[in-house]
Amino acid sequence: MDPKKAKDNLVSFIKNEVRKSGLKRAIIGLSGGLDSTVVAHLCVNALGSENVIGVIMPYETSDPESINDAQMVAKELGIKTEKVDITPMIKAYFDKFPQEDRIRIGNKMARERMSILYDLSRVYDAMVVGTGNKTETLLGYGTIYGDMACGIAPLANIYKSQERELAKYLQVPPKILNKVPTADLWPGQTDEGELGIDYPTMDHILGLLVDKKMTVNEATKKGYKAEDVRKINGRVRDNAFKRKPPLAPK
Amino acid sequence: MDPKKAKDNLVSFIKNEVRKSGLKRAIIGLSGGLDSTVVAHLCVNALGSENVIGVIMPYETSDPESINDAQMVAKELGIKTEKVDITPMIKAYFDKFPQEDRIRIGNKMARERMSILYDLSRVYDAMVVGTGNKTETLLGYGTIYGDMACGIAPLANIYKSQERELAKYLQVPPKILNKVPTADLWPGQTDEGELGIDYPTMDHILGLLVDKKMTVNEATKKGYKAEDVRKINGRVRDNAFKRKPPLAPK
Repeated sequence: MDPKKAKDNLVSFIKNEVRKSGLKRAIIGLSGGLDSTVVAHLCVNALGSENVIGVIMPYETSDPESINDAQMVAKELGIKTEKVDITPMIKAYFDKFPQEDRIRIGNKMARERMSILYDLSRVYDAMVVGTGNKTETLLGYGTIYGDMACGIAPLANIYKSQERELAKYLQVPPKILNKVPTADLWPGQTDEGELGIDYPTMDHILGLLVDKKMTVNEATKKGYKAEDVRKINGRVRDNAFKRKPPLAPK
Repeated sequence: MDPKKAKDNLVSFIKNEVRKSGLKRAIIGLSGGLDSTVVAHLCVNALGSENVIGVIMPYETSDPESINDAQMVAKELGIKTEKVDITPMIKAYFDKFPQEDRIRIGNKMARERMSILYDLSRVYDAMVVGTGNKTETLLGYGTIYGDMACGIAPLANIYKSQERELAKYLQVPPKILNKVPTADLWPGQTDEGELGIDYPTMDHILGLLVDKKMTVNEATKKGYKAEDVRKINGRVRDNAFKRKPPLAPK
């Protein structure tokens, strides 16, 4: 991937799609992580800093450092921010279903953030710009109708490893570039911990299975653990529904 | 449309898709209106009443009669219900943005209900079955990532007028069959009032534009007001994004 070409393509994509939709601005959930930082940079390049809104939506268990990082990114880019604590809405719901299932709470948080971004998109006449990259999208590592929901998804065809190259080219602060990727839905969560494989390996295996359309056996012969290839292949297949509109009968 | 054939097709569709997904049950937002009642009937036919969960999610302004009707439908079908008042979650959010924009509140309500259905779908190992019909889906008369979000959408190819025929065949209670269609997002709201055209006319015009692929001029010559045809054509075009996954660059 040529980072300059990728940047130019993505900036044109954002500019064209926002214009075609008749909207004026872009609105992004800013987490302080790499994905939303890269998307914020691209949107500022496409639309100007005055037309980008970063929404910071912490939960009571969110790492306070993440909020600071999100604010630092917004300040550096000169974009307006809104801050909405999602704790009251999440608590109002789980008061009725008291339990400790962090997956349920994490999904509810992701959908609450989507709902807030869409609500504010109406106020700002803005396109909700998603932050999911190709790795997450293919693996279904995200919440359907939560963080996977958006109007446009500029990083949907950029693997996490390619995104890092792009981020360096965009001069994203090293602090953010070097963070361990996490959805930060509960303390200690990391993407690679949860997925069980490191990003460079996942991206290579996905490239073989998805882009080169290899079988599991063929991909394994390229020097990967059969267990990892099977696991990734299974995730891509089982999460295909998250990338499609609801199924309708003929 | 032959209502018996339609019923058989839709029942098989639900049975097959729930089975293929590896899930056991269906979960539906029960509003007391025609759409969710028809879908509940179809799901009970497909999976048995013990495998269908109806979730009743009133808001403080919801018509109390709707809740009674939803409970009546659940009782008649012998399905389990959950009741979740969405008022606390909606209030917790708009406390921060006090205003009277009923569209914003209505969209937030629709997304809260989706979020609750998905949360409970995990508890019940259930497929979220959508209730949108073809008329609403084509017109984009619904909230993206709200009531339009689901796993399967059995009515997505059935116009509202056809749905009434199907409902009669399914022996839906006359009280529900004869209700004025409404999203009940604010008092006094009706579908036809908001859309400005009655359902039979909308369905005929949609059939000409979408199924018969006529131009606006051709459809107008079939005896409809040019203004109505243009309005419907515009809605179908402008809301196409609601029926597609997020746009991604190449």
